[in-house]
Amino acid sequence: MTEIYTLEQIQSAIKGMDFSPAIEEGFVQYSLGNVTVPPVGELVFDQPPGDTHIKYGYIQNADTYVIKIASGFYDNPKLGLSSNSGLMLVFSRQTGFLKTILLDDGFLTDIRTAVAGRICAAYLAPEKITAIGVIGTGIQARMQVEYLNTVTPVQNVYVWGRNEKHALAFQADLCAKGYDVSVMKTPAKVAENCNLIITATPSKQPLLFKKEIKPGTHITAMGSDTSEKQELDPQILKRADILVADSRSQCRSRGEISRALAAGTVTEEKIIELGDIIHRPEKINRTENCISVADLTGVAVQDVQIATAVCRAFENRGKQGE
Amino acid sequence: MTEIYTLEQIQSAIKGMDFSPAIEEGFVQYSLGNVTVPPVGELVFDQPPGDTHIKYGYIQNADTYVIKIASGFYDNPKLGLSSNSGLMLVFSRQTGFLKTILLDDGFLTDIRTAVAGRICAAYLAPEKITAIGVIGTGIQARMQVEYLNTVTPVQNVYVWGRNEKHALAFQADLCAKGYDVSVMKTPAKVAENCNLIITATPSKQPLLFKKEIKPGTHITAMGSDTSEKQELDPQILKRADILVADSRSQCRSRGEISRALAAGTVTEEKIIELGDIIHRPEKINRTENCISVADLTGVAVQDVQIATAVCRAFENRGKQGE
Repeated sequence: MTEIYTLEQIQSAIKGMDFSPAIEEGFVQYSLGNVTVPPVGELVFDQPPGDTHIKYGYIQNADTYVIKIASGFYDNPKLGLSSNSGLMLVFSRQTGFLKTILLDDGFLTDIRTAVAGRICAAYLAPEKITAIGVIGTGIQARMQVEYLNTVTPVQNVYVWGRNEKHALAFQADLCAKGYDVSVMKTPAKVAENCNLIITATPSKQPLLFKKEIKPGTHITAMGSDTSEKQELDPQILKRADILVADSRSQCRSRGEISRALAAGTVTEEKIIELGDIIHRPEKINRTENCISVADLTGVAVQDVQIATAVCRAFENRGKQGE
Repeated sequence: MTEIYTLEQIQSAIKGMDFSPAIEEGFVQYSLGNVTVPPVGELVFDQPPGDTHIKYGYIQNADTYVIKIASGFYDNPKLGLSSNSGLMLVFSRQTGFLKTILLDDGFLTDIRTAVAGRICAAYLAPEKITAIGVIGTGIQARMQVEYLNTVTPVQNVYVWGRNEKHALAFQADLCAKGYDVSVMKTPAKVAENCNLIITATPSKQPLLFKKEIKPGTHITAMGSDTSEKQELDPQILKRADILVADSRSQCRSRGEISRALAAGTVTEEKIIELGDIIHRPEKINRTENCISVADLTGVAVQDVQIATAVCRAFENRGKQGE
């Protein structure tokens, strides 16, 4: 019998849950080679522009495997709809039978992505964060900022967005939550004011350039997850003292690192996987003027871990209800 | 709002429907290059043995795209469960939103696979079918035989299965439906008695060999859909006068043709796509002693077409109910 849960049920079941430990553990197992994650399945559309990703896999010895489908259709807001949607499917490793459908509309993908940003900041951000910079004004731009609350008490935020209206809405929303938000005219102005920057756009051209990045800055680039998207000039990755990928193999063909590899500004030897750093933080040494870049393309193990945790939450509820 | 339909609802909605025209049209559009079908996503498991396939794509200008997940776990019958399971997901091409979940438990995959076998027989079988041969005794072995009812009135069936009990059950079931079924001791004995043969096993070693195939025989090999499975000796494909693939690109890495290409017994030039034959049947010329082989690996366009047809059936029901 397949269990089906709606977004509302999921939101209620996970209230107060912190997925960071589960997702950290997922990255570690992934980097240790204990996770099977085939290449991402992908459909890329024009008119209207959109992409659908299928991410799937399992942790060795687990009793389930997970298939996650997530879509971003960037004209949806014009129709009054969310860009993101999706669902997660949990299967039995013993029989292949579908156990659970999480109709999360992309919500769990948003969370596991924001959690990955939080993890990057926890391990890579400078000791003294002066202000948080955000390039982009969408759901992830907001969540990435809010999820930093366990990493830093800083509430100074500088934001840039292509669409000024959206930037002002971002400002209003985060101000209502207690943040102090300044809207900047250019991405460069964000970089000038911040030493922790998150890029969260579907841009296909670089938005930030090497000369704009101050020494001592950490950048988490989470917007570019296809071979077409790009937010950072590859020269930034060349300049970076620490260059982190969520998945070495995915970053060969997706995201900022793939562009820098293609441009020849970095070589694979420079890349450290996020799971390696979580497993052995002493692997990196962040000095004062260090520039670090973490390139997040989104790894199926994040989906596996969050879907598993959510299913467990429903199971526990079921037991309590008995 | 996502519509969710159970197997029972699907079975009721499609009663009496013939999917052959839709699936023929799908193969034609595929071979004309009007269908986007990325490489098959795959998880292959040991202990217990099983595989999960993700097939997905869309026909150009369609307003939906389809993702299908189908699993075969071959020890399930020991637990009293079906080997096959799965579901189909239909998404809006405009927004990426999930429109419909067909919880078909693999039933629609079974149908679209059986329909593909029927189409192969309709275009490739010898004019006078003497008897139907089946290698394998599972669901597909049964359905492949039954779906031939629109192609031939022949009800003489010869079957071989690894497990004699299952072969006897196959015999009993089809006899109850009016067929005259003989259980053979070897695959060779099936070939000796038949000029239309279907192979429908998850075998990893060849079960039929060149010298066993009589001139004038057509073989539809539908069991091997991964790079590991194989039912035919590659020498049969070398001997074949007509060699058909459901998908040229998939057959490079899956099924009988991939084995024969690797063994060097055939070259790609020899392969004709099924959709090309449906589109222009004059492309092939079946002479009396001709041996033909059709290698079916299962193409996402079949799933796209059957899912679309089922959704339309539900929509029409909805309208009638208004």
